[in-house]
Amino acid sequence: MSESEELHKGLEGMLVAESALSYIDGSVGKLVYRGYDIEELARNASYEEVLHLLWHGHLPDAGEFDAFTGAITEEQSVDDTVLEALAGLAAADESPMAALRSGVSMLSASDSDDADPRDPEAALAKGRRITAKLPTLLAAYDRLRRGEDTIEPHADLSLAANFLYMLTGEEPDDAATEAMDQALVLHADHGLNASTFTAMVVASTFADMYSAVTAGVGALSGPLHGGANQDVMELFFEIEAQGADPVEYVTTKQGDEDGWRVPGYGHRVYEVKDPRARILEQRGKELTAASGDTSYYDYAKAIERFFTEEKGLAERGIAPNVDFFSGTVYHQLGIPVDMYTPIFAMSRAGGWIGHVLEYQEDNRLIRPRGRYVGPEDSEFVPLDER
Amino acid sequence: MSESEELHKGLEGMLVAESALSYIDGSVGKLVYRGYDIEELARNASYEEVLHLLWHGHLPDAGEFDAFTGAITEEQSVDDTVLEALAGLAAADESPMAALRSGVSMLSASDSDDADPRDPEAALAKGRRITAKLPTLLAAYDRLRRGEDTIEPHADLSLAANFLYMLTGEEPDDAATEAMDQALVLHADHGLNASTFTAMVVASTFADMYSAVTAGVGALSGPLHGGANQDVMELFFEIEAQGADPVEYVTTKQGDEDGWRVPGYGHRVYEVKDPRARILEQRGKELTAASGDTSYYDYAKAIERFFTEEKGLAERGIAPNVDFFSGTVYHQLGIPVDMYTPIFAMSRAGGWIGHVLEYQEDNRLIRPRGRYVGPEDSEFVPLDER
Repeated sequence: MSESEELHKGLEGMLVAESALSYIDGSVGKLVYRGYDIEELARNASYEEVLHLLWHGHLPDAGEFDAFTGAITEEQSVDDTVLEALAGLAAADESPMAALRSGVSMLSASDSDDADPRDPEAALAKGRRITAKLPTLLAAYDRLRRGEDTIEPHADLSLAANFLYMLTGEEPDDAATEAMDQALVLHADHGLNASTFTAMVVASTFADMYSAVTAGVGALSGPLHGGANQDVMELFFEIEAQGADPVEYVTTKQGDEDGWRVPGYGHRVYEVKDPRARILEQRGKELTAASGDTSYYDYAKAIERFFTEEKGLAERGIAPNVDFFSGTVYHQLGIPVDMYTPIFAMSRAGGWIGHVLEYQEDNRLIRPRGRYVGPEDSEFVPLDER
Repeated sequence: MSESEELHKGLEGMLVAESALSYIDGSVGKLVYRGYDIEELARNASYEEVLHLLWHGHLPDAGEFDAFTGAITEEQSVDDTVLEALAGLAAADESPMAALRSGVSMLSASDSDDADPRDPEAALAKGRRITAKLPTLLAAYDRLRRGEDTIEPHADLSLAANFLYMLTGEEPDDAATEAMDQALVLHADHGLNASTFTAMVVASTFADMYSAVTAGVGALSGPLHGGANQDVMELFFEIEAQGADPVEYVTTKQGDEDGWRVPGYGHRVYEVKDPRARILEQRGKELTAASGDTSYYDYAKAIERFFTEEKGLAERGIAPNVDFFSGTVYHQLGIPVDMYTPIFAMSRAGGWIGHVLEYQEDNRLIRPRGRYVGPEDSEFVPLDER
């Protein structure tokens, strides 16, 4: 037991677990999942292959891939009980992120497997069920709040394609499917970030996977964690609505609003450009070019160019992160801005589940201490004499 | 930044925050909330006074008490959207703890206050709303799964009395109200336990109070955290059903089942008897005596006496904890065993909210590191060549 009296607020830099899932070298902008470079995975592997890699330790061969995706396909439907509750939340104008938190939590009711919570096979199966249902849940919520009927998952589509299909009602073309799939791959894991650590703390009590993922969604809903991708796109909308020059707009805003920062810019662990940003930037370029209107991509590049070339921010380790370009991609896929962070959650759930499975293999309850700084020996006075 | 390469798995003994809420001296069995001894609070203060103490830093005077309880009374009703979802969960036979997790999460939909998540007043108000609604939510769920109509909260009753009233349909007598209130006071806070730390990690992203409390419920649902109070009572039911001698029963079970331990016995932080156990023991004694059947209390005392006097466990720092006697109290109040841990959550939510408010005053995102132990430079092979 380490009884040091030093205070480790924020746990910055503290090692709390060993993990073989992902590694970030912020100094060179490198991210790997189990040793595979993220760029290679994003270009060549599907989200399903990456889930298999994260959970089972290796990329699946053809037989494993069929078994894995087959099991996911069987578990994509979401129960009417949950859909009805989502309809109620939609009527109350609940945010998609909060609705996702409630929806994931409710999924446990239709999971009839009440194996020992310490059984790793059961935990894995619960994780797979959640991952299979997340796109269905999220797409259903967006349709419900638009007053549209929900759409059943299509057994022949991947998780990425199914999400777009259930959201829009139309089977996506290859470019859209690839972009969505790539976004899911890129967001699947990123070391022990706050939501992943949340899921681990919850699961360290051997609470079930539904509790862990629900808590992860909650953590990701905080403005210090998720949400920047939405903020970036809303910034671009403002620029567009005012017909402003993007660089002038952000520099004016920085001058006017004390403490305002360009969203999607800078990252605690990267000293150079986030590798995920590089990939999504390319995808945003292609998708906007194909659509005939490159303005959002152009805004992003103009702002980046200004900060890099005029302001020298890149030299100070401040560069675009994954959130700076993802919105441009999602917007081209027809996804509403307040779904961007829920999509992040839908993808990152793969990482949460992977870290929970890994941590529970050699579990230790996570229970730190606080330093008591309150009064000593307070003297009690009854209410009627206070 | 502390970049020590030491691994702090479980964070045991690690100081992660300063807190003025509660202090435990495990060596003498002392627990204080803001300097007040828990025994004094349990005997003389209501749960509402304790909430005020935890959240506002002092026990309320008469005016503050009226304002505080008045605000709670106004916010006790739970929306039909949530009650309908609970009915769906009840039909699916969801556990009360999972239903509570989903129910708390859904409460955010009826909270129309969308202030800046960094605003402490807004966070406090959300915490108060949640606390006001928890007894309503939990009692409603129990009635729904019994096929009974839910009962609206009664404006003249305390949280403790209201819970029993909405659960049973009858206004509780003074002895029942006092016992319930005392149980809520005793469970309200206990340092940075796993569920409290969970709530803090979530809230360190400035996620809202609904996300923090939902995550706390999830963490408490794990068998390494909550749940022992239910296990104790189920043990007593087994002993009764078999007409067994309690001491003989547990010693036989210990011999037969490798690794089986008496639930509610021993605690990571107490080396002597948990002060909360001492108080609930007394309450269990009184309530069982009044009912004319003291058998569960007698079982508990017989087992404790055996472990203390014959086995010398107390000398080794192993003694009954709060969970060992709480079930006996709850059972006398007519509460089903699988509601014991949800009641723990209903009370501890006061502590979760208090710690979140305190932490957010000087917030720092909680984001540790993992030590990467996975492969380096894995070579990618396409799916069709694997």
